[in-house]
Amino acid sequence: MPDASLLEAFPTPSDSPFVVEHVAEEFTSQCPKTGHPDFGVVTVRFQPRPGRDQGVCVELKSLKIYLQSFRHEGIFYEAVTNRIRDDLAALMDPAWIMVRTDWRGRGGIRSTIRAARGEPPAEYRL
Amino acid sequence: MPDASLLEAFPTPSDSPFVVEHVAEEFTSQCPKTGHPDFGVVTVRFQPRPGRDQGVCVELKSLKIYLQSFRHEGIFYEAVTNRIRDDLAALMDPAWIMVRTDWRGRGGIRSTIRAARGEPPAEYRL
Amino acid sequence: MPDASLLEAFPTPSDSPFVVEHVAEEFTSQCPKTGHPDFGVVTVRFQPRPGRDQGVCVELKSLKIYLQSFRHEGIFYEAVTNRIRDDLAALMDPAWIMVRTDWRGRGGIRSTIRAARGEPPAEYRL
Amino acid sequence: MPDASLLEAFPTPSDSPFVVEHVAEEFTSQCPKTGHPDFGVVTVRFQPRPGRDQGVCVELKSLKIYLQSFRHEGIFYEAVTNRIRDDLAALMDPAWIMVRTDWRGRGGIRSTIRAARGEPPAEYRL
Amino acid sequence: MPDASLLEAFPTPSDSPFVVEHVAEEFTSQCPKTGHPDFGVVTVRFQPRPGRDQGVCVELKSLKIYLQSFRHEGIFYEAVTNRIRDDLAALMDPAWIMVRTDWRGRGGIRSTIRAARGEPPAEYRL
Amino acid sequence: MPDASLLEAFPTPSDSPFVVEHVAEEFTSQCPKTGHPDFGVVTVRFQPRPGRDQGVCVELKSLKIYLQSFRHEGIFYEAVTNRIRDDLAALMDPAWIMVRTDWRGRGGIRSTIRAARGEPPAEYRL
Amino acid sequence: MPDASLLEAFPTPSDSPFVVEHVAEEFTSQCPKTGHPDFGVVTVRFQPRPGRDQGVCVELKSLKIYLQSFRHEGIFYEAVTNRIRDDLAALMDPAWIMVRTDWRGRGGIRSTIRAARGEPPAEYRL
Amino acid sequence: MPDASLLEAFPTPSDSPFVVEHVAEEFTSQCPKTGHPDFGVVTVRFQPRPGRDQGVCVELKSLKIYLQSFRHEGIFYEAVTNRIRDDLAALMDPAWIMVRTDWRGRGGIRSTIRAARGEPPAEYRL
Amino acid sequence: MPDASLLEAFPTPSDSPFVVEHVAEEFTSQCPKTGHPDFGVVTVRFQPRPGRDQGVCVELKSLKIYLQSFRHEGIFYEAVTNRIRDDLAALMDPAWIMVRTDWRGRGGIRSTIRAARGEPPAEYRL
Amino acid sequence: MPDASLLEAFPTPSDSPFVVEHVAEEFTSQCPKTGHPDFGVVTVRFQPRPGRDQGVCVELKSLKIYLQSFRHEGIFYEAVTNRIRDDLAALMDPAWIMVRTDWRGRGGIRSTIRAARGEPPAEYRL
Repeated sequence: MPDASLLEAFPTPSDSPFVVEHVAEEFTSQCPKTGHPDFGVVTVRFQPRPGRDQGVCVELKSLKIYLQSFRHEGIFYEAVTNRIRDDLAALMDPAWIMVRTDWRGRGGIRSTIRAARGEPPAEYRL
Repeated sequence: MPDASLLEAFPTPSDSPFVVEHVAEEFTSQCPKTGHPDFGVVTVRFQPRPGRDQGVCVELKSLKIYLQSFRHEGIFYEAVTNRIRDDLAALMDPAWIMVRTDWRGRGGIRSTIRAARGEPPAEYRL
Repeated sequence: MPDASLLEAFPTPSDSPFVVEHVAEEFTSQCPKTGHPDFGVVTVRFQPRPGRDQGVCVELKSLKIYLQSFRHEGIFYEAVTNRIRDDLAALMDPAWIMVRTDWRGRGGIRSTIRAARGEPPAEYRL
Repeated sequence: MPDASLLEAFPTPSDSPFVVEHVAEEFTSQCPKTGHPDFGVVTVRFQPRPGRDQGVCVELKSLKIYLQSFRHEGIFYEAVTNRIRDDLAALMDPAWIMVRTDWRGRGGIRSTIRAARGEPPAEYRL
Repeated sequence: MPDASLLEAFPTPSDSPFVVEHVAEEFTSQCPKTGHPDFGVVTVRFQPRPGRDQGVCVELKSLKIYLQSFRHEGIFYEAVTNRIRDDLAALMDPAWIMVRTDWRGRGGIRSTIRAARGEPPAEYRL
Repeated sequence: MPDASLLEAFPTPSDSPFVVEHVAEEFTSQCPKTGHPDFGVVTVRFQPRPGRDQGVCVELKSLKIYLQSFRHEGIFYEAVTNRIRDDLAALMDPAWIMVRTDWRGRGGIRSTIRAARGEPPAEYRL
Repeated sequence: MPDASLLEAFPTPSDSPFVVEHVAEEFTSQCPKTGHPDFGVVTVRFQPRPGRDQGVCVELKSLKIYLQSFRHEGIFYEAVTNRIRDDLAALMDPAWIMVRTDWRGRGGIRSTIRAARGEPPAEYRL
Repeated sequence: MPDASLLEAFPTPSDSPFVVEHVAEEFTSQCPKTGHPDFGVVTVRFQPRPGRDQGVCVELKSLKIYLQSFRHEGIFYEAVTNRIRDDLAALMDPAWIMVRTDWRGRGGIRSTIRAARGEPPAEYRL
Repeated sequence: MPDASLLEAFPTPSDSPFVVEHVAEEFTSQCPKTGHPDFGVVTVRFQPRPGRDQGVCVELKSLKIYLQSFRHEGIFYEAVTNRIRDDLAALMDPAWIMVRTDWRGRGGIRSTIRAARGEPPAEYRL
Repeated sequence: MPDASLLEAFPTPSDSPFVVEHVAEEFTSQCPKTGHPDFGVVTVRFQPRPGRDQGVCVELKSLKIYLQSFRHEGIFYEAVTNRIRDDLAALMDPAWIMVRTDWRGRGGIRSTIRAARGEPPAEYRL
């Protein structure tokens, strides 16, 4: 069962803005209708609040364990995406966060869901 | 025969904006002039209206069945693209929708058609 | 309905051995159980009998029309492969023929079927 | 000899804006200096005027025949590009058109030429 | 728990030899030491015994369900590979079978295991 | 019109066996039925007779001009392949020659033709 | 131990703005928790101050030696990225600098960190 | 020795704006310190002044010969890039020019240098 | 310092022959002349002796730690390759072992070294 | 001028057979007819004689310097290939050597030349 209490954070190590991206290529959950496994790639991008404002970043190993907690969960694509964004936003209260899920597809259709919060940092788009 | 009544929807599961993309790689219709099969990839991207405004999202399996209903139809590339956009826009009345079709081509020419409705959500372009 | 009478042939234009390969990337048939479309790539390789022995080669456009005749047929992967090999072998009685079908897959499993007749010509393997 | 009279058009099938792209991967003309063949890829993108304004779209097969009419022509890269843009603009008077040619190169140098007319439709850039 | 009773078979639809290959790209089991998920690709290749000898082929959907039954199993790479080969060989008693597993890796090391039974059919190696 | 007299040769510069491969990526001829252009890649591989036996190799620039002489010729795939092999074999009388043509295809079918003469040199297969 | 004194600079060879990018594909440091090696790619992009303003550019070989000085250092991804940006900014005081690190990942998760200083030069974004 | 007098130009063949790009994949110069060869790719993009304003375009073959004149020159990456931009800008006085060099690298570091003059034409960025 | 005592083994889990391949993509050692780091990919393939003959397989995590022990060693490409083959052969006394190292190169030259012991198992070459 | 005296060797570090491959991606010489530069990739593969038989291997840096000595030489593709094989065979008297050159091509034709001496070691072909 997805468990946000598995997530841990550490203080943002800088006061100048920077952007972190984690790509988990081995995500799996289950279809709530059929119980068949779903396979996807989860991308998390965020700009933490600065260290001087008590900003924090998600710790990498805890993120991995948290994502593994979806393994036995029957849950829709859209709900996975919103759930991860909400749990990480609650943990870090970041300046910006974007969660993207890419699913291998069923019946010849591949799907991608994007959910965000906050303003994307324009100066890092290069 | 393309049949919009095959499409089903479910309530948008969030009030914050997000974007859904479905890519159907196994689309086929027929050339209305020669009857020869056409093969293409159909990409559908949309931002649903939020749940609190009675927004809905197209259901994935019904989208697949709907797209299969073009299999025996003689129809031009441009008409396929406009038809899908119009049928999905009628179903969901989304904040934004874009339909793109990529065709394998005839006589050494590959073609792509894009049709949209509404304003693309700039904050999801990353 | 698959129709071998659509196939046409022309006399082998040489007495020295050579190998022909045709790859049809836009093949589609239907699942006999569910009626859902199957999509695959059909590869045909053969060494015709020489012209002096009244050998013939399949004509390219007739091969295309023949393969399109599977479009509305409910038929298993294995049967497609064996059927094409048998129909082409009956048409050409070639020194060697190999038919390979690569299917995009269902439920996360891609499949490939190979069926042959005769001895593969070792001197063309480079 | 390039012959614009080969081009045919049909009425724009919609009043809402959309964008068409045709990519001809098998274009060949000849170098006007040496007579050696040039090989390139021609990409045509345009937004037709809407149907209610008597807008038209270029017909695909006529475009193919038109492009083949450059086969025996000695003509520079830049002239090919401008000629195609001008001929298609004269045919369709589109809201926007862009022609791009990518040449395989001579002497280790690959070249690309882009010529446009009108304002590119920003809302289709996704 | 891996369950060979999930596997079903159907009679070999031909008396001439042919080769079947199924590639399951969404395989997951668990590390028996740490409980962390493992992700791999399972390739099964076999030449069935001919139909006239009561030969059978594994049924595709049952193979998918069977492979999903490893999802909650703590089992080593080598054991997965041997187990699948043994279960399929017991089901089909094929002329030849080869099972290959490709694992995404741990600690920067990717692994591949191959286990076979019987003589590979040389005439299908092209 | 294909013209073998355009081909030139130079003495094999060594007495020990070696293999030469030329890949012409910009080959074009015309369909004898419709007059439409065909586009293909021509690969020529050969082991010349040694210099001490008056062996010769085809000169590269003359090969290019020779291949350009097919530009205005209506000729089938198989005839192109056999013609090139025969013309080059007549020029060089090599220990071994193989000609392969890969065609971009018509109607969704790509084709490859291989024609050879002599025994392929096993020691160069690495 | 990372050692900024290894970095050397040379005067900016122009007064007009230009952008330099160095991509070091063989970067390695160590995990401060486990001591296991981390492997990544470090990208440095900057616009130096012009030569007339005493602007300087980092010298390539000294950059290589400096990056090698992280080999035996236990240091987090984020700290590597910030450290390199700060050391190079201190050396050059550039109009703009961006440092990006791409890490091969642990536990199935790949990570990317971006840190910048100054305004990215819009005119070089093509 | 790089020799700008090798460059030739011809009148811009149009009064409407267009963009030319030449990519020279076989550029080589020498390191001024060690004399070892450097290998790179040179990309030149420009929008010529219109023909009615006596605008000119660089001639392709002369550009090739000019680039070959760097073969025996000991010169830094940055100097190559600035030199080419300055020589071409002096020849054409274009509305915009951008020169980019991509170097295969030394010591595991790949480098890219970009130098421009004038305003990039926004309408060609698609 | 490379330390073979780090290697651990477990009993071969089967009596029928199978082949194991481990690919370590993050290998680094140091050049014995200059002290600069070398980066390579190490591939280990072996067929263990069967379990009934007290055959053993190298344990994956111990292999990873063993390969990390080359990090601070100044050692030539050839010596790395031979050392790994000899250490693993001493550990497992396998029916066959092959070690291949692919190095990113110095001075524009990439290198690959292969060292083996025993007869490669022909039946696994598919 | 190509200078075999630049080549250095070191004693084969093992008595068991192994194979070395060096790939030089930045080779350049000049066309003897036109003086234009040629660009190619040189691959050298050899099995040295064992150390106990006074076998030697070519030293990597000397190979690089030797290959650079072709930079100002007007020489044909075939002559480059034979020259390198002969110079390296004279240096090492190896059990087997193969030299392959891949040339970027002129006039749309890419070329590959292979020259060998001795028997290729079959056991390393995996």
